[in-house]
Order: sequence, then structure tokens, then C-alpha cells
Amino acid sequence: MTTQAEAYARLKARFARIAALGEAQAMLHWDASAMMPPGGAAARGEQLAALAGLAHELMTAPEVAEDLAAASATGEWDEANLALMRRAHARAVALPTALVEASTRANSACEKVWREAKARADFALVRPHLAEVVRLQRETAQALAAATGLSPYDALMDGYQRGVTAAEVEPIFAAYEAFLAEALPCAEALQATRPAPIPLPGPFPVAAQRALCRRLSERIGLDYDHARLDESLHPFCGGTPTDIRITTFYAEDELAKSLLGVLHETGHALYERGLPEAWARQPVGEAAGMAAHESQSLIVEMQTCRSDAFLSFLGPELQASFGGGPEPYAPANLARLWRRVSRGFIRVDADELTYPAHIILRFRLERALIGGDLAVADLPGAWNEGFRALLGITPPDDARGCLQDIHWHDGAFGYFPSYPLGAMAAAQLMKAARAAIPDLDTEMARGELLPLIAWLREKLHGQGSRFGFQDLLRHATGKSLDPQDFTEHLRRRYLE
Amino acid sequence: MTTQAEAYARLKARFARIAALGEAQAMLHWDASAMMPPGGAAARGEQLAALAGLAHELMTAPEVAEDLAAASATGEWDEANLALMRRAHARAVALPTALVEASTRANSACEKVWREAKARADFALVRPHLAEVVRLQRETAQALAAATGLSPYDALMDGYQRGVTAAEVEPIFAAYEAFLAEALPCAEALQATRPAPIPLPGPFPVAAQRALCRRLSERIGLDYDHARLDESLHPFCGGTPTDIRITTFYAEDELAKSLLGVLHETGHALYERGLPEAWARQPVGEAAGMAAHESQSLIVEMQTCRSDAFLSFLGPELQASFGGGPEPYAPANLARLWRRVSRGFIRVDADELTYPAHIILRFRLERALIGGDLAVADLPGAWNEGFRALLGITPPDDARGCLQDIHWHDGAFGYFPSYPLGAMAAAQLMKAARAAIPDLDTEMARGELLPLIAWLREKLHGQGSRFGFQDLLRHATGKSLDPQDFTEHLRRRYLE
Repeated sequence: MTTQAEAYARLKARFARIAALGEAQAMLHWDASAMMPPGGAAARGEQLAALAGLAHELMTAPEVAEDLAAASATGEWDEANLALMRRAHARAVALPTALVEASTRANSACEKVWREAKARADFALVRPHLAEVVRLQRETAQALAAATGLSPYDALMDGYQRGVTAAEVEPIFAAYEAFLAEALPCAEALQATRPAPIPLPGPFPVAAQRALCRRLSERIGLDYDHARLDESLHPFCGGTPTDIRITTFYAEDELAKSLLGVLHETGHALYERGLPEAWARQPVGEAAGMAAHESQSLIVEMQTCRSDAFLSFLGPELQASFGGGPEPYAPANLARLWRRVSRGFIRVDADELTYPAHIILRFRLERALIGGDLAVADLPGAWNEGFRALLGITPPDDARGCLQDIHWHDGAFGYFPSYPLGAMAAAQLMKAARAAIPDLDTEMARGELLPLIAWLREKLHGQGSRFGFQDLLRHATGKSLDPQDFTEHLRRRYLE
Repeated sequence: MTTQAEAYARLKARFARIAALGEAQAMLHWDASAMMPPGGAAARGEQLAALAGLAHELMTAPEVAEDLAAASATGEWDEANLALMRRAHARAVALPTALVEASTRANSACEKVWREAKARADFALVRPHLAEVVRLQRETAQALAAATGLSPYDALMDGYQRGVTAAEVEPIFAAYEAFLAEALPCAEALQATRPAPIPLPGPFPVAAQRALCRRLSERIGLDYDHARLDESLHPFCGGTPTDIRITTFYAEDELAKSLLGVLHETGHALYERGLPEAWARQPVGEAAGMAAHESQSLIVEMQTCRSDAFLSFLGPELQASFGGGPEPYAPANLARLWRRVSRGFIRVDADELTYPAHIILRFRLERALIGGDLAVADLPGAWNEGFRALLGITPPDDARGCLQDIHWHDGAFGYFPSYPLGAMAAAQLMKAARAAIPDLDTEMARGELLPLIAWLREKLHGQGSRFGFQDLLRHATGKSLDPQDFTEHLRRRYLE
């Protein structure tokens, strides 16, 4: 082996080790959410801190910089892998340990107070903590910007979603705002002319929901030899590519949240399962970021499972599980129930059409906070004003306004744009899939997603992190993000 | 701080980190047994190997030796802690990495073949693999002996149970052999004069077993804010002191195994819960070894839960759970069912009286294997001959002979003696507890173990690893291991 190849081989071994630590962390996070008794929390914190600290030390050890300077790789995948190693290393060494530790402490302190502030709808309570979080995030953003050549906000966004900048997102969001101003009243008016949806006859016994969620997620492609479905307060998809852990939350009087939630998480899970096995535990073998990930949960949940075709398969399944007459389970009624447009204050309850507005607001505000153009003290006012401008209603209190999400209060800035970017990418991918796969809707009407998943595996899942977000879309669909595909989808679904 | 104190402080931080990695490993082991889908096994292997490798590197880094040479500590606990650090370091650096890796590979290969060899009762199949395991264990034992000043077999045993040597165990086991030769026929004769036990009316629905096991383990002191009870093929107590994970295995037609198994694991769990919190993640804060641990599972299962007093509490509980008339649940009948003496071939099914004989055989054989006095090829013959000498019956095949246990085939030599040493220590501790706590049996008859557990916490659990096995017993009971207490207990239970 050449010296360059040896250096690269050492780097591969080191990154595999770092990734194995990451897998251990993923499992311990899942356990903490789904299994751990409350008394285990303090020790779990110690375990996770030790793993994070060791991973950071492995990444920032002096010999990594030496090997990265010496290494070269040949072949498209190895070249991409080495480039991703350089990127991960640059981001890791950019941040002084003292800053990382101060951020971790500030985030943790703020997040605790936020829970109470939200419960009391009292922003003043959390304000000083959030101000400290923002101060440290600005410092972090500046350090990452210096290391990456990106702007500070882009440098944060890049940590969640490589390959897309605020300058690209801004016009996309502005165009959506314009589209929504016209489309939302039309969709509401059209909806008002149609019959009110008939609620599904509950209750929905938890055991029956559990069995149904498991069966349907398996039906659409999740292999339970490599997965589990459990329960946690906040649903998520965790674990590792060969050992996926999805969770949901069941309530006897509510079906849609658990069912559609599990289908959503199954989309994430299928992405992880489809990552290239040959590149397991290498940077290039990972998923291509949060927007790409969200595109996969939404192509399953929104594009497929809430489609007329799939609802015609789902109706009889639901009736078999929960009984009652056929009317509520008719596909048209399910569509009215689960594709209802409604202006609301809460992002996580928002429909497909208004959801991006919730994010557009957050994107503008967090960019201003990181850029130093908005003071934390002015956040509630800016939020309410922005919200009214976008959706025409004003939050009655901060619990239904700027206190509703954990993200900022836990130090996550630059993450929010992933959601609508994912929704837009999902529409674009679905359009391309429909063009490539004849009978896609016929298959979906039989509950058969395998042709779609196979196409996604080839075009997207199996590509790992070779491409950034825009290049990945170009690879899969022949063009970079084209929000028109999303608005076309929305027009068909909500305006016709 | 002095230089010596600084060195010790650095060591404490390092050992805390190593212990946190160990806790992560414990959780991942639990998950692999109780939760993980089969497809996760390969990745789990990578995760555990990465954690073990990093822990080893942390322990054997050059600065540890420097700090250990420089460090001094004051106060009984810190002195003991530093001594345990030195011991752990000496054992870790004694083994060349190549030997550790060769052992891991050989154990893993042998264990896989052993499963098939046991299923086919074909020792020849596993013989070459076991020979390689033994060869590497002898090498390991010699390296540890050179580092610790112990004999090779003692050096292995010391890894499981610090503070007791084969020279101490040998006469104890010889005396037990003599006792058993006289006691076993008498116990059998006495048993034959008594009514046959009435079986409990099954089936025992799994949900009812689960609820009962949970309730009883809670009743005797396990706090489920810091524990879980789940299911796995092979029951165990895992997790960490503030987050205990016990498992069992339920079958509809069998109650004793799950119920007494959970009570046994609860004994282990209560020990872990009672370890000194102020010394968490330090060597001196750990449990004092496997024999001490087994004494705690057996003081709960054998000394308490199979006692006449506790059975009088348990009978009505069982009747309430599974129904039927009162006769099978009478304490005397439960005693006849669950304290039945019977010569059998299988260690894990053995009764309290004959169990030590199973271990005495293994102790002698493994000591001869490690000492080079017995060839692996001669193991089946030596086993069968030794078994007949101890219990008067000859295994019909090697599956019920030298192939029955995983231990040797997975490289565990020196572990077996912990079981009867634990049983003997349990009897000794119970005798001391009974002297210290008035009304102990009255409390037990009410299902109340808190006085006993409180005594054990003070005398044993809370002492962590300050003492080796013999010194721990001296601290708790005023004398080192006295097997007479155990034979007294057996005489009362089986010969009166």
C-alpha cells in the first residue's frame, strides 16, 4: 500500500470506530425514551457524555489531521468518503472544547426551564436562558463559518443538511408564501362546499392499534428481523440501519396520530434500511441529512399513505381492525378526515398545506437571531407579527407561539428548514417515481409499496451520503429542488 | 493538591469513564438478550467490540502506569479504591493484545460449535475448539499469574472472585463431599417417608405470571423506578446500579422456574441497588465479586423465599393468582415441591443439597485442565467417572455430561466455584442476620424482607468492593467462610 492509501485505511478504521460509538449512543437514546425507568436518567447522562467525549477525542486526535493531510483515495465512493471525513473533522476541530461544554450546559439548563415556561405560557421565565443559548449558538456558528467558508447561519444549517444554503431557501420560501396567500383561502372555500368528515367510530383499543401499526409498517416494507416498534412519549425513528427502532404513542380515543405516525417513521426506517451496506460505519454510508430523511418519511406518509389510492386499501383494513359500518372508512371520507386544511397555531398539528408557513416563520426568526438582527427579548412580538402575516391569525399566548417547540430551547438552530425541504423533495421524488413506474397508483391501491421503495433504494437510499441535498435530487430526479412539484401536488390535492 | 493527590484524581476520572463505558456495554448486552431483533446481532458485535477496545486502551494507556506509580490516597475507601485500580491495571496490562484477541476469537468459534455438539451429544465435534480455548486460557492464566503472584488457576478465579484461593476452596469442597455422602441417602430416605407433593394446578397464564413476578419482586424490595423486568431465553440480572434490568422466561405449564428465578435475580438486583452511591463508577463501588453476588441471590431465593416462613406468605398469593383449592398452596406442600432432593445430571436443575457436587466436579476438572494435568480429549471420561463418584449415577451421554454448560466453551474458567461459595456464604449471612434481627422469621412470614435487606445493605451491599470475599464475610458475620453454617442449614431443611 502507498503511504496515502495507508493513511486512508487508518482513517476508515477510525471512522468505523467513531460510528460504532454513535450506534451505541443511538441505542442508549432509544432505550432512554422507550425503556429506561426514570431512576436511570442520571447514569444514562454519564454514559452518553462518556461516549460523546470519546468520539470527539477520536475525531480530534492529532494523528487524524496528519492522516487527512496525507491520505488520498481513488474511486467515486472513496473520494466522497474522504471528503466527508475532512468535513466532519473540520467541523469537530473548529469548536473549542470549552464552547461545546458551555453549549451543552446552557442547552440542558434552558430546556429544563422551557418545560415550565411552556406549561405556564411565560416567556419571561426562559428568556435569560434562551439568550445564553443563542449567544453560544452564535459563537458556534461563527467558529464553524470560519472553518467551512459558509456564512454563520449556513454553517449551522449545514450540520443538519449538507448542500443547501439559506440563500437558496429564501426565494423558495418566499414563493411558497405567495402561493399560500392565494391557495389557502381557495382550499378553505372548496373544503367548505364538501361534506364534513364522519369521525371514525372509536374507541381504538391499544392492542388493536399496536397490531395494525405493526402489520401495516411490515406491509409497506419494514422487515422486523431488523426492526422493533415500541412506545415513547415523542415518536421517533432511532437505532441503526440493521436494527431500526421506531416508536409511537397510543391513545384509546385517537387513531390517526399513532397510525400515520408509524407510517411516517416507517419512511425514515426504510431509508436507513436501504443505506449501502458496503459503506456501513463510514461517512459516505450515512443518510444524506435531515431534509433527505424527511423526504423519505413524507413520501411514505403524505405522498403515499394519504393518497386516494392507498386510502382505498387502508379503509377495509381499518374497518377490520375497529369495526362499525363502512361509511367512515370510505376512501373519500378518510381523505376528508386526514387531509383537512385548518389554520392553527401548533406546528406539529398542522396540515400539509399550512405546515411550511410554520417553518418559514421559524427560518426567518432563527436566521435573524443568529445574525444578530433580532434580540431574544423581541422574539414573542416578532413571532406573533410574523405568524399573523403568514396565516392571518395571532397566537393567544406564547405557549401557542414561540414557546411551542423544544428546538431552539435545546440549541437546535438551522434544523427547521429540513421539514418543508423534505416535503418538497418528497413531491418531486414522487413525480419522478410515477413517471418511472407504470401502475404505481394501482400498486398503492393494493397496499403494495415495494415498486416505489425499490426505486427509492436505487435512486436515493443506496446512494448514502455521496451527494449533498441538491445533488442527490439531481441524481434521483434529474433536477435540483423544484418547489413547483410540491405546489402542483398541493393544487391537485387541495384545490381541485 | 499534592502531585500524589492530583495523580489519584486523574485516575478517578479515568476509571469513572471506563466504568461508564462498562455501563453502556451492560445496557447493550441486556438489549441484545431482551429486545434486539435478530438482524441487529452483527452490528451489536461491532458496537461491543468498539467499547471493549476503547475501555482496554483507556486502562492500558502509558499515563495510567505513571499516575499509579505517583498516586497516593488517604482514608480507608480511597486507599482500597487505589489498590483496586492497581489490581485492575496489572491484570489488564498483563495480557498481550494478541492473546486477548486470539482468546476472543477462539471462545466465539468454540461456543458456536458447542451449541451443535450439545444438540448432537457429540463431544468430538467441539473437542479441537475446546482444546484451543483451554490452550489460550492456560496462557492467559500464566500471564496473569506472573503479574499477580497467584498460581495460574487462582489468577483466573481471582478475576471472578477476589480474595479466595483454590487452596482454601479445596478442603471446603472435600468436606462437603464427605457430608453429602452421608446426608444425601438420609435425605432421600426421609423424603420417601413423606407424602408426594401435589402439583400446582396449571396452566399458569403468562400475563398472570408476569404480574405476580413483578409484584413479589417489588414486595421484597425492588424499586421499579430503578428497574425493569423483561423476558429473555436465559434469565439474568443486568444493567447498572440505578437502572437494573432483570429478565426471566415464562412458560404456561411451569411456574417455579420463572417465579423462583425472578426472586433469585431480585437478590442480585438488591445487591446492585445497595452499592455505595458515593463510589459509583469507581472500582471500590462495585460488587465484591461473583461469590458475593451469588450469596445475595441465594439468601433471597434459597434462604428466604423457600423457607417455611416465606412459603406461608407465598401460598395465598399464588392461590389468588392461579386459583384452585387450598391444598397445593399449603406451605408444607410448596416445601415438598420446591425443596425436593433428586440426583440428576443437569446442574441448573439441581436441588440445593446436590448442587455443590456438580461444582466440585467442575472445579477439580477445570483446575486440572488449566494445570495441564488433564487433556481435553480425556474430559468426557473424567467427567463421567467423577460424577459417579460424587452422586452415584453416570451421565448417559455428554450432552448430560461435560457438554451441558456454556462456561468452558466460552472461555470461562475459575467461575464455577462462585456458586457453592455463594450458597455457603448465604447460609452464614442468614445465620448472622437471624441473630441480629429479632422476629426475622415473623417478618418473612408476612412477606416482609425489609429488615433483612436493611441489614445486608449495612453489612454487605454498602461495602462495595472494599473487601475481598473472605474479609467481606468477616466484616459482616465476624468470621471467614464457615461451611458449617451451610451444612447446618441443610441438616435442618433436609434431615429433620
